[in-house]
Amino acid sequence: MVVMGSIAHAHWLVEHGCDGLAVFGTTSEANSLSLLERKRLLEAIVNSGISPARLLVGNGSCAVPDAVELAKHALQIGCGNVLMLPPFYYKSVSVEGLFDFFAEFIDRAGDPRLQVYLYHIPPVAQVGFPFALIEKLRSRFSNVIAGIKDSSGDFENTRRLIAEFSDFQVFPGSEAFLLAALRLGATGCISATANVNAESMQQLFQNWHTAEADEMQSTLNCVRQTFQRYPMIAALKAVLSIANNDENWRTVRAPLSQLSDADTQILLRDLEGLAFKLPRL
Amino acid sequence: MVVMGSIAHAHWLVEHGCDGLAVFGTTSEANSLSLLERKRLLEAIVNSGISPARLLVGNGSCAVPDAVELAKHALQIGCGNVLMLPPFYYKSVSVEGLFDFFAEFIDRAGDPRLQVYLYHIPPVAQVGFPFALIEKLRSRFSNVIAGIKDSSGDFENTRRLIAEFSDFQVFPGSEAFLLAALRLGATGCISATANVNAESMQQLFQNWHTAEADEMQSTLNCVRQTFQRYPMIAALKAVLSIANNDENWRTVRAPLSQLSDADTQILLRDLEGLAFKLPRL
Repeated sequence: MVVMGSIAHAHWLVEHGCDGLAVFGTTSEANSLSLLERKRLLEAIVNSGISPARLLVGNGSCAVPDAVELAKHALQIGCGNVLMLPPFYYKSVSVEGLFDFFAEFIDRAGDPRLQVYLYHIPPVAQVGFPFALIEKLRSRFSNVIAGIKDSSGDFENTRRLIAEFSDFQVFPGSEAFLLAALRLGATGCISATANVNAESMQQLFQNWHTAEADEMQSTLNCVRQTFQRYPMIAALKAVLSIANNDENWRTVRAPLSQLSDADTQILLRDLEGLAFKLPRL
Repeated sequence: MVVMGSIAHAHWLVEHGCDGLAVFGTTSEANSLSLLERKRLLEAIVNSGISPARLLVGNGSCAVPDAVELAKHALQIGCGNVLMLPPFYYKSVSVEGLFDFFAEFIDRAGDPRLQVYLYHIPPVAQVGFPFALIEKLRSRFSNVIAGIKDSSGDFENTRRLIAEFSDFQVFPGSEAFLLAALRLGATGCISATANVNAESMQQLFQNWHTAEADEMQSTLNCVRQTFQRYPMIAALKAVLSIANNDENWRTVRAPLSQLSDADTQILLRDLEGLAFKLPRL
């Protein structure tokens, strides 16, 4: 049932504004899924007709063998774009140690189709991607290290990434930075809220150079801020649940908790006030 | 080769001061091993003749299905004592969410032999075990929640754990607190440095009420502080490598890095100054 919901959601997203789908990121609760669950769900998505080229497959494991196994499986079914967390258990490790982790991963995945996107999300993973690491990786694996999802929440970091690295796809991890980042040369954004609001983001993406862009950004911000008052993943799922009259959509895995009924009602009322279009799959 | 080294080391530890072995903790680099590697190594340890009752099997996964799979495997081969990390990827989660994670784990493991030891190591995992969580777990699973390894590095936390929870095995995560904790009623300690210095710890453990105890503690502290000048895991392995004339012992997995030759030499010289007995397996 959850898989069915995920498939319907994936198709709805592609039809409603998403150019690509970052499956198995933080909002996907990928770290709460076993390796086998991730493989089966990815197969189901690809078999349902979503083009593998559209997929950015989250691959976060602190163990190289697990990361290699997931990447090889994804590559086997045509998915070459992977979004890599750093090995996030260990703290205070050196740039060289982190480099060695990715170098071993890339070498053992051993596939020229592999395109690695770095997943920089220090508020959650704690371990991030310092510039020295990105430089070292790009210098050694120029054809593999394709881009970064910058979920630092620090626009100055996004700005520097765009300014310092050419031929590198930079995606802020929040649409709050979409317009400002596009003006500097960003590729787009990869955002949790895109799960329910991608159409408006795509509209800004296509019209960022127009006079209406700032107002579009402002509307996006209002929706995002409304969701941000609550734990994001639970809030997104509560809205999907209500919009589709499906209790299963509220499911989150521990240690996350569902949004309460009371909070869901306030969230819906506030979204209604913003004329937000509910995501009916 | 690495497995052979681990087995020889396990037997040496049991013969040189360790009452139990916490396999697959942080120093074991358990989070750098795949699930399958952990299973195979645990089987090898048990098959080599180490009693399962002596083993405390580290089980740290952010995904309940993986944690259940590891625990069921351990139980199948007679290992009921597991050392559980919290699901450490997600930050800012509620006590209820963390409780739900452990409750689901215990229910799905579904074995009355299961004894859960909580692995509190906030400097690394970031997510820890607040007292409210421990209370809630003990109240619901009184026969399962057996103890805690307190690697907070905060002796006040250890003191409170001993004072507030009766019939609960409290192990500070460093022998630096061994004497002080034993005086308050701790069960022992579970420490990285025990990998090379367990005999001296056992000696203090057996003589903590004697007049020599403070001096024994002081000697333990000197050795620990010497190791702590370096990344602990790499330093322990460097010393095991030199003591056993085996380069394989220096191996660490990325993102960790080996200790340099220069640092190894200084470390050895300093240990020699302390009349430290090298761990010859």
